[in-house]
Amino acid sequence: MLKLVKTRAKTGSEPQQNAALGGELALIQHIRARVEASASSGLRLGIGDDCAILRSRPGDEIVVTTDLSLEGRHFRRDWHPAASIGHRALSRGLSDIAAMGARPLAAFLSLALPATVAANAVWVDGFLDGLLTLAKLHGVPLAGGDTSEAVGDGVIADIVLLGAAPAGRALRRSTARPGDLLYCTGALGGASAELATLSANPRAFARDYPDGTHPHLFPQPRLAVGQALLRRKLATACIDLSDGLSTDLAHLCEASGVSAEIDANALPLHPFSEQLSPEARLDAALNGGEDYELLFTARPSTRMPRTIAGIAITRIGHLTPRRPRTPLMTLVDAEGHRTPLQPHGWEHFRNA
Amino acid sequence: MLKLVKTRAKTGSEPQQNAALGGELALIQHIRARVEASASSGLRLGIGDDCAILRSRPGDEIVVTTDLSLEGRHFRRDWHPAASIGHRALSRGLSDIAAMGARPLAAFLSLALPATVAANAVWVDGFLDGLLTLAKLHGVPLAGGDTSEAVGDGVIADIVLLGAAPAGRALRRSTARPGDLLYCTGALGGASAELATLSANPRAFARDYPDGTHPHLFPQPRLAVGQALLRRKLATACIDLSDGLSTDLAHLCEASGVSAEIDANALPLHPFSEQLSPEARLDAALNGGEDYELLFTARPSTRMPRTIAGIAITRIGHLTPRRPRTPLMTLVDAEGHRTPLQPHGWEHFRNA
Repeated sequence: MLKLVKTRAKTGSEPQQNAALGGELALIQHIRARVEASASSGLRLGIGDDCAILRSRPGDEIVVTTDLSLEGRHFRRDWHPAASIGHRALSRGLSDIAAMGARPLAAFLSLALPATVAANAVWVDGFLDGLLTLAKLHGVPLAGGDTSEAVGDGVIADIVLLGAAPAGRALRRSTARPGDLLYCTGALGGASAELATLSANPRAFARDYPDGTHPHLFPQPRLAVGQALLRRKLATACIDLSDGLSTDLAHLCEASGVSAEIDANALPLHPFSEQLSPEARLDAALNGGEDYELLFTARPSTRMPRTIAGIAITRIGHLTPRRPRTPLMTLVDAEGHRTPLQPHGWEHFRNA
Repeated sequence: MLKLVKTRAKTGSEPQQNAALGGELALIQHIRARVEASASSGLRLGIGDDCAILRSRPGDEIVVTTDLSLEGRHFRRDWHPAASIGHRALSRGLSDIAAMGARPLAAFLSLALPATVAANAVWVDGFLDGLLTLAKLHGVPLAGGDTSEAVGDGVIADIVLLGAAPAGRALRRSTARPGDLLYCTGALGGASAELATLSANPRAFARDYPDGTHPHLFPQPRLAVGQALLRRKLATACIDLSDGLSTDLAHLCEASGVSAEIDANALPLHPFSEQLSPEARLDAALNGGEDYELLFTARPSTRMPRTIAGIAITRIGHLTPRRPRTPLMTLVDAEGHRTPLQPHGWEHFRNA
C-alpha cells in the first residue's frame, strides 16, 4: 500500500516500522526524487495523489497495456544486470505501444521487492537507471504506481503504459488482408542468441557490438517506426514480436482470418546469431522471441521505404486467403520447398 | 507473457506445454469468455490486441491508479474467500477513482497464479465472481491485463483503473484550506473489526448484517459520492480512507499545508466494532484502515447534505492554519481534552 502516488503513506512514527519498511520508504523517496527531475508534457499530476492525471489531445484515443515481469520467469538476477531488468520491464510495454502506432503518454510501475533487494541501493539504482534512461529516451514520464515488500524471494515488476493515437487509426493485428505483403523491422533472433551466451556465462553480459546493441539485455522498442507506419498510412496491420515470429504471426493470421507464407531466405538474421548453426539460427529468428521488432503488413501497391526512422525494413513474405485443410503459416526455403510453420515461440525461464 | 490482450499467445503445439500452462491457457480463455459477456461503453477495443483502446469524452482528463495486492501481505487465502480477494483487489483501485470524483472507464488485471491455484477452477471462478460482480455494479469493463504462472506460492494481482473527470476539476488532496470543515462518508473501523473476527475464526467469514455488509471482505468504494462531490462542487479536497483516518488525514494535511482537529465524539463508528472496548473502537476508527470511505473537506459556507447517494455524510472536524511547533493533527474528546494525533494507520499482514 506504499503507493508511489501516496508517497507519505507510512511515517517514521509507524509502530511496526522495521528495517525492510525503512528500506521501502527510502525506495519510494528515491524513485520520486529521480522522477521529479524529468519533464512530462501530457502529465497534469504525477506522483502524490490518489491518481495521476493525464490529458491527451482532442481527437485522440487512449491505448493501454500492462506487462507483468517476474523474477525466475522473465528475468534472473544472477543473469541480468539490474539496469537490464528495469529496461526490459519498460521495453515490453513500450513495444506494445509501438505496435499500435501510438505515442507513449505515461508509464506506471507496480514494484514488489524482497527486503534484501530493497536495502541494496546499488541494485535499486541500477534498476531505476535502466528504466528511467529508456523512459527519457522516449519522453515517457513515470507517473505513478505502487510499491510493496515482496512476500517471497523474487522481484515483481508490473509496468503499465498509456499511449495516444488519433481516434480510429491505431494499428491493429486484425486488419491484414490476403495479398498483403509481410514486413519486419530490424533483425531477428538476436535476443535469443544473446540469451544463450548469457546462460553459458552469466557474468559475461554478452558481446557488445560496435553500435552498443544488446538485443536481449537492452531491446529497443520501435516507437518511431510504429508512429511513422500510422502517420504515413503504410501498414494495414501490425503486431510486436515479443513471443517469437512464428507465434506472433499466428496471432496476426488468426485475428485477421488470413494465412501467411514466410520466405526463409529473406529473414533478416541478427549478427548476434552468427555463432549458431544455420538451423539454430533460423530457429532463433522464427521462435526465439523477445526481439521486440515490429511485424506488419502492407498492400502490394504501397511503396515501402528500405528504412524507417533509421531502422531496416525487410519484406519477409505475404498473406494468402485462409482455406480449410491448409496450414495457417507456411515456410518456403531457398529451393522453394514448403513446410508448415508451427507457432513455437516460447517463454524464457519457464522451468527456471 | 500470456497476456489477456494476447489471448492466443501460447498454443497447444507449445513444445514445453505442461499442466500448469494448460491451466493458465484455460484461465485466460475463461476470463475472456466471462469478460466478453459484459458491456463496455467507453471501450473501443478490449482483450485481443497489443493494447486496449479507450475513448473519453472531449474535455475530460484521464486519471490512473495502480494497486498491487500480494498474498500474505494484502490478503490470505486461508482467511479470505476467493470472491473477497477479487472484490478487494478491484475495490482498492475504484476507491482511488472515487477519491478523485472521477468516473471509472476501464480496469486492467495483471494476475500471477501458482500452478495449483490456476488449476483450481472453483477458486478461479470465485475470484472472478468477486471482481466482475463489483466491476458490473460500477459499469467498469475489464479491458485487458497480463497473466503469468507465479514463481512462488503466492497469488499476485495488480489492478489498474482508468477513470475520467472534467479537465481541471478532479478532486485532489492538496487543495484544502484552513477553516474548511472535515467530513467522511459511511462508518469507520468496520473493516478492522471484521478482520479481527476473521483472524480469530478464519472460517466464520464474520457476521453478515441485515444489509449484507462485510466492511473488510467486501468494502464498497464510494464512487457515486465522489462524483456527486465533484459535480455539485461540494468539496475543496478529497482522499480515500485506505490506510486509516489518522494516516490519510496526515496525507491531506501535508499536501494542503494545513493542520486538522478531529472531534472524537463525532466519529461515525461502524456497528461491526460494537464488540470492542471503547478505546479499541476509537482506535479501529482512527487507525484501522481499509474502510475505503472518503475523507473530504468543504468550505464552512457549503450546505452539506446529510446523505449523498444514500451514504451518510458526517462532519468530524475542521482544518486550521499550519503553525510551527503545533501538531499536524489534534484529537479533541467529549470533555474538550486535546491530544496530538499520530498517523498510526497500518498495513495488514505485514508480518504474516
